[in-house]
Amino acid sequence: MVEESQKLSFHPASPPGCKIELPSRNICLDIMQQLRSVMFPGYFRLSEFSDDGMVFHVGAILDRVAIDLQEQIRRGFCFECAGDGNLEHCTTRAETITRAFVDKIPDVMGLLAADVQAAYDGDPAAKSPGETIFCYPGIFAITNHRIAHELFKLGVPVIPRIISENAHSVSGIDIHPGARIGRSFFIDHGTGVVIGETAVIGDRVRIYQGVTLGAKSFPLDENGNPVKGIDRHPVIEDDVVIYAGATILGRITVGARSVIGGNVWLTQSVPPDSSISQGKELKTGKKQQN
Amino acid sequence: MVEESQKLSFHPASPPGCKIELPSRNICLDIMQQLRSVMFPGYFRLSEFSDDGMVFHVGAILDRVAIDLQEQIRRGFCFECAGDGNLEHCTTRAETITRAFVDKIPDVMGLLAADVQAAYDGDPAAKSPGETIFCYPGIFAITNHRIAHELFKLGVPVIPRIISENAHSVSGIDIHPGARIGRSFFIDHGTGVVIGETAVIGDRVRIYQGVTLGAKSFPLDENGNPVKGIDRHPVIEDDVVIYAGATILGRITVGARSVIGGNVWLTQSVPPDSSISQGKELKTGKKQQN
Amino acid sequence: MVEESQKLSFHPASPPGCKIELPSRNICLDIMQQLRSVMFPGYFRLSEFSDDGMVFHVGAILDRVAIDLQEQIRRGFCFECAGDGNLEHCTTRAETITRAFVDKIPDVMGLLAADVQAAYDGDPAAKSPGETIFCYPGIFAITNHRIAHELFKLGVPVIPRIISENAHSVSGIDIHPGARIGRSFFIDHGTGVVIGETAVIGDRVRIYQGVTLGAKSFPLDENGNPVKGIDRHPVIEDDVVIYAGATILGRITVGARSVIGGNVWLTQSVPPDSSISQGKELKTGKKQQN
Amino acid sequence: MVEESQKLSFHPASPPGCKIELPSRNICLDIMQQLRSVMFPGYFRLSEFSDDGMVFHVGAILDRVAIDLQEQIRRGFCFECAGDGNLEHCTTRAETITRAFVDKIPDVMGLLAADVQAAYDGDPAAKSPGETIFCYPGIFAITNHRIAHELFKLGVPVIPRIISENAHSVSGIDIHPGARIGRSFFIDHGTGVVIGETAVIGDRVRIYQGVTLGAKSFPLDENGNPVKGIDRHPVIEDDVVIYAGATILGRITVGARSVIGGNVWLTQSVPPDSSISQGKELKTGKKQQN
Amino acid sequence: MVEESQKLSFHPASPPGCKIELPSRNICLDIMQQLRSVMFPGYFRLSEFSDDGMVFHVGAILDRVAIDLQEQIRRGFCFECAGDGNLEHCTTRAETITRAFVDKIPDVMGLLAADVQAAYDGDPAAKSPGETIFCYPGIFAITNHRIAHELFKLGVPVIPRIISENAHSVSGIDIHPGARIGRSFFIDHGTGVVIGETAVIGDRVRIYQGVTLGAKSFPLDENGNPVKGIDRHPVIEDDVVIYAGATILGRITVGARSVIGGNVWLTQSVPPDSSISQGKELKTGKKQQN
Amino acid sequence: MVEESQKLSFHPASPPGCKIELPSRNICLDIMQQLRSVMFPGYFRLSEFSDDGMVFHVGAILDRVAIDLQEQIRRGFCFECAGDGNLEHCTTRAETITRAFVDKIPDVMGLLAADVQAAYDGDPAAKSPGETIFCYPGIFAITNHRIAHELFKLGVPVIPRIISENAHSVSGIDIHPGARIGRSFFIDHGTGVVIGETAVIGDRVRIYQGVTLGAKSFPLDENGNPVKGIDRHPVIEDDVVIYAGATILGRITVGARSVIGGNVWLTQSVPPDSSISQGKELKTGKKQQN
Repeated sequence: MVEESQKLSFHPASPPGCKIELPSRNICLDIMQQLRSVMFPGYFRLSEFSDDGMVFHVGAILDRVAIDLQEQIRRGFCFECAGDGNLEHCTTRAETITRAFVDKIPDVMGLLAADVQAAYDGDPAAKSPGETIFCYPGIFAITNHRIAHELFKLGVPVIPRIISENAHSVSGIDIHPGARIGRSFFIDHGTGVVIGETAVIGDRVRIYQGVTLGAKSFPLDENGNPVKGIDRHPVIEDDVVIYAGATILGRITVGARSVIGGNVWLTQSVPPDSSISQGKELKTGKKQQN
Repeated sequence: MVEESQKLSFHPASPPGCKIELPSRNICLDIMQQLRSVMFPGYFRLSEFSDDGMVFHVGAILDRVAIDLQEQIRRGFCFECAGDGNLEHCTTRAETITRAFVDKIPDVMGLLAADVQAAYDGDPAAKSPGETIFCYPGIFAITNHRIAHELFKLGVPVIPRIISENAHSVSGIDIHPGARIGRSFFIDHGTGVVIGETAVIGDRVRIYQGVTLGAKSFPLDENGNPVKGIDRHPVIEDDVVIYAGATILGRITVGARSVIGGNVWLTQSVPPDSSISQGKELKTGKKQQN
Repeated sequence: MVEESQKLSFHPASPPGCKIELPSRNICLDIMQQLRSVMFPGYFRLSEFSDDGMVFHVGAILDRVAIDLQEQIRRGFCFECAGDGNLEHCTTRAETITRAFVDKIPDVMGLLAADVQAAYDGDPAAKSPGETIFCYPGIFAITNHRIAHELFKLGVPVIPRIISENAHSVSGIDIHPGARIGRSFFIDHGTGVVIGETAVIGDRVRIYQGVTLGAKSFPLDENGNPVKGIDRHPVIEDDVVIYAGATILGRITVGARSVIGGNVWLTQSVPPDSSISQGKELKTGKKQQN
Repeated sequence: MVEESQKLSFHPASPPGCKIELPSRNICLDIMQQLRSVMFPGYFRLSEFSDDGMVFHVGAILDRVAIDLQEQIRRGFCFECAGDGNLEHCTTRAETITRAFVDKIPDVMGLLAADVQAAYDGDPAAKSPGETIFCYPGIFAITNHRIAHELFKLGVPVIPRIISENAHSVSGIDIHPGARIGRSFFIDHGTGVVIGETAVIGDRVRIYQGVTLGAKSFPLDENGNPVKGIDRHPVIEDDVVIYAGATILGRITVGARSVIGGNVWLTQSVPPDSSISQGKELKTGKKQQN
Repeated sequence: MVEESQKLSFHPASPPGCKIELPSRNICLDIMQQLRSVMFPGYFRLSEFSDDGMVFHVGAILDRVAIDLQEQIRRGFCFECAGDGNLEHCTTRAETITRAFVDKIPDVMGLLAADVQAAYDGDPAAKSPGETIFCYPGIFAITNHRIAHELFKLGVPVIPRIISENAHSVSGIDIHPGARIGRSFFIDHGTGVVIGETAVIGDRVRIYQGVTLGAKSFPLDENGNPVKGIDRHPVIEDDVVIYAGATILGRITVGARSVIGGNVWLTQSVPPDSSISQGKELKTGKKQQN
Repeated sequence: MVEESQKLSFHPASPPGCKIELPSRNICLDIMQQLRSVMFPGYFRLSEFSDDGMVFHVGAILDRVAIDLQEQIRRGFCFECAGDGNLEHCTTRAETITRAFVDKIPDVMGLLAADVQAAYDGDPAAKSPGETIFCYPGIFAITNHRIAHELFKLGVPVIPRIISENAHSVSGIDIHPGARIGRSFFIDHGTGVVIGETAVIGDRVRIYQGVTLGAKSFPLDENGNPVKGIDRHPVIEDDVVIYAGATILGRITVGARSVIGGNVWLTQSVPPDSSISQGKELKTGKKQQN
């Protein structure tokens, strides 16, 4: 009984014309793969082409990405407001957003360049920046995040989440598309990292596997439902290092240059230059490294 | 020397006729993909077809699933009892089981409908039930589990494990096919969750990443080998919430409506309505949320 | 500005002739798949062939693996020393290494045979060694590791890392190719396991999900950069068991036959036959099992 | 100069909205493949399914064919009247035509059944009707033709031609979609056969490789352009046999039961029961056979 | 009505157990592709492997071909005698035939070597034997024929026809699998060539496009059906050349070293060293060449 | 014995370094497909892209074609002069030729534009130039020919033949890459057309299926081998029409504006404005049309 009604609710209550308009996970992931090849032209696909031809290849990829992405965004709107029926409006909005996104690509490339450098500098085992692009799950995850975040800021539904869940599946790193992350960010190993929707992370922050930047609690409205849109995740200031397994909960602030030790459970703000540890061995200036 | 003998033991001691009978991981995963499209007809593949044609598509998929699944089950038996040689018996058994499984599909659809609703209700960030079907690793994992569990109950070898390990690889959530899980179950984020074979979970339970429902110890028989078939994992009653990183070990009971805090280490039963926390901040009615 | 220069550094400063020489992740992973079918001939692909033909199939696969691997190794050198230009030298070196690697394959097969047996013996839920080959993430990860480790010892750049990161992505188990691991090693569940580059693990060691064998700290040189090549990860002696979530940091030694309990945080050496636990329930001879 | 302008004319003068609307050859050929599996359910793909499930598979295929075909027909209209811009009208028309076509499928199946029987009866080398379905280029060509002809009669542009040219490429048999062909038609060998647009062929006709049913000449209008829509190809009455290499030109009639010998050049009508030969060996009742 | 019954006759009257046993055209063509790579190891696929490894690759291909071919042959029997139900007998017969076929492969390689040499010698435009292997439709067709003919002689149903029709489709050359063709045979251009089932061709024969070696007439039995198994196609003796478009019909003999001119229509035997032409220009020793 | 030695000669006598250097048929055909999409941007693949992006897509395709083609040409030289060992020389030559070829592409586009127009004008059944691009085997064949001919003129080995044989297989039209063909050329139906290496065809020529422009005879040198490099195929002047099945042999000239009737056998030159027919019906100004 209940099942029957629920089952029906799976199917977006769409008018026939909207029937085939759900976004395609595969196409979204192909778009990400195309963007990755543009972001790191020496590493994915494009490496085989000539210098002279590079401008054409990048142009061609971006043109195709724009066409595909616009269609997926349009479908994303259809997915959200299924039944609204204002097909034309969706198309126009998708077009505007796609253009705005494409304009942001150079900025994203700049941010990723700094992330790669941070990974190379931060891991003594890294032999070259190239190795981090090729092999590091942290670079995979932050690439997906920076793109998903731009789409999130532009109000695109569903697709940012598809992109971030792809990174989650591949790397074990779960960053909500809404999280604001500064320059030169580095996640090492990464499995089990969770970064919540309203988290704010400064520049040159470094975190290790199993770190949670979560919410501690949230106020309920009169109906017992959580109040939406409240900042409920931590603020991590510049140059902070957070070691493996640390759990940081709630809208607290970790002051600049602080070091949070492995497995630490932290629910209160700490001032800049703090050194918090579960045991006693960890001191500022020394670093745990796996 | 030793290697040589061991190496040989890799190869199931099969009679020639059984040579080509190992189950195919790829076909098992394709069957899962087909079933997913039937479970959530608006979301995977089937979305592109007409309403009139839907009954044919679902019927055609289920017919093909039944044929493929029966063959894989038959191979699974061959895998297990390699050398028994009673090919005909295996075939008959596979046919009976496949029919029983197909009969269970509507029930599984009902359970999944409730799981999707639970995910939507449980995560304030979720915009629609559809988004959870499309993007949430917890929904991916529970879908695989509910199907694997039906096959497990029917005595199918190997294949339930292939299905659950696929979910493990994709989502980082490791649920043994034997675990009994009630209605409206929701796992958020999910990476690192481990749920053991004899765990029992009630209705409307919610758990977060890194939670372990494991065994604490198990008695050995006279040969020093673990005694099989003993209930060794926790019982989680209705409406319990377990926050990230909590470890619950042994055949203990977590009473209904209890809240287990993040990183808690629990090896003793707790009565209904308990609130267990590592720190002091967490109280009943408030909720940690990432 | 900064971005621009950084961006350029993404692209290996290669002479035109080296343009197309980056290793291919897909080919490396295909090589792994081929090797897996040789390592476990009854389980991947080869199961369908005749006994008489097996020697041809194995020979053909190994010949193809050798050709592909040699090319990838050559590209790996090109990747590392981009611009050195000594193409011929790279080719010769790649050829020598490939031969040395192929000679090691029988040894690796012997080690994997023992690992499979350990998984079967160590998990009461395992129905047959075959099931562990087919389904267990721990067997997937150790297969990749044993091959990556041989390549690492032979000085191959990048490729061992591609192989180990593939295991990381699929299984959630992150083993640095440099780690030295003894016979009959078993990782259960595995998500979140991290094993560092200079870790040394004895024979018959068993570890569970979420275990870290990491570095605690490392000395800096006069420029503030970490000194490379220092042994900074734990030594785990024979027959040790380490339960889920334990964190063991630094160049300490865990003595033979010790049992490290779940979620333990350990930064000091412990003598043989120790039993370390967070709570008090765990004693030697009893075992936690999920 | 001239080239430039011509080049531009390649590109249909389409409004931006019609840009992506050209039919897809690959999809048209996939539709043909799907229809073939429905027409001959024992031979292409469907053979692997259960009897119980067959109705679902056929229904599912036809539903998918209808969706794909409607889209291709719509594009076909766009292709023809590029620039007309009445998108909605095209869609409606495509829908109506697709329905009419689907209604004709049972008739086409009946015709093809008779063609298969004719091939089996007509070639002493044929071991079973099944062999002709599986192997005979003549059956391939007539299957494509009967479907293309239905679409042609419904006024579908381009797509009938794509279908008939596919048969031409595969079998060397070139039948214009407009040709009207009776029951139990058989083409043996087939390479080089050409049947023109206004040809009319009766029941139980048999022709061999290299036969041309062409136009001899056609009147020009005042501008020197050929007048369209004139019947200019032969009428072949019931039970005629035409041997290899015969050329029959113009709107002439070959009377029922006539036999036209190999390499004969015929531009005048012949009465029923005629026997026309290049040499003298061929008489009614004897038959050339390759 | 009639259609309905005919339609049913499409479906081989098979018992349920034989349902999925029809041969697969795609697998048959893949077998051909595999055999081609063995026949011409420098040209198809195998070119990329090492000399040392070649024996393994050839062995592996042949093992796989034997397994696949045996299955297809078994299905072929099932196809023919659908309903006979003697599954075991079919399997045994398929196994015996497959072995006999594999034993013939070296002979076929020898014949093809001579055909390639003949193509190279016979066409002044050919730059190397390799070019003929790579590009000449005549070599493609004769390769298919020589393999199909071996299977035909062994009594394999359907599959020889599938192989020969594949050559027909690709090259426009239609050789019945039953035709007996001597050494060093060369077909130039080839489109439209038809060679009938009982044709016999000597050594070093050369023919051009559009040549038919057909049957002129055949006696009917008391029921008006053609009598089967009668030699009804020409015998072409050694060193004959037949130019484009010539039609040779009936069980006649073209004597050794004869030259048959373009478009000649021949239905009577000619003695050795004849020169037959439509016009008068062609004399022995001069050659038409395209 | 003989076989053995012949078999060995299949394998180009290549030094080890040249082992993997044979051209790839598949890559050559992919290059053709890419070029087709550039030649007819509205029809193959490119139709889905934006006008703004078109320049990038065309540039990207041409860059990739140039890279792939250069490699295939290099391999073609290796194929021809196997064993010469001057690898560097081959590379340089391939590079020069590839550049020269790319420079010719605009000219080829101009020629194809005129051919498309000729097909549209020449066939009253053609609804639009687009339909001829999409469906007409004659356009397929002439596109391949015009590209193969440019490569032939540049001295590229093997690859022109691969391209022309592809057209032969698909369309049944066999044009040697060496044939010189003027502007606005149209082949209707096309099956069985053969145009020899030294044929010369003027502007606005139209030919039908089964037409041969072949060699009649050729002088032998003292060793009895044909003398190479002699003009031995017909010269067809401007505005000639040649109907189906006509055979024109030897270095004769068909004068401008002549009409050669169906099945005519012609071995002598004819003056301009001739009308040659087998029967009597055909006169200048009237046209046979299929």
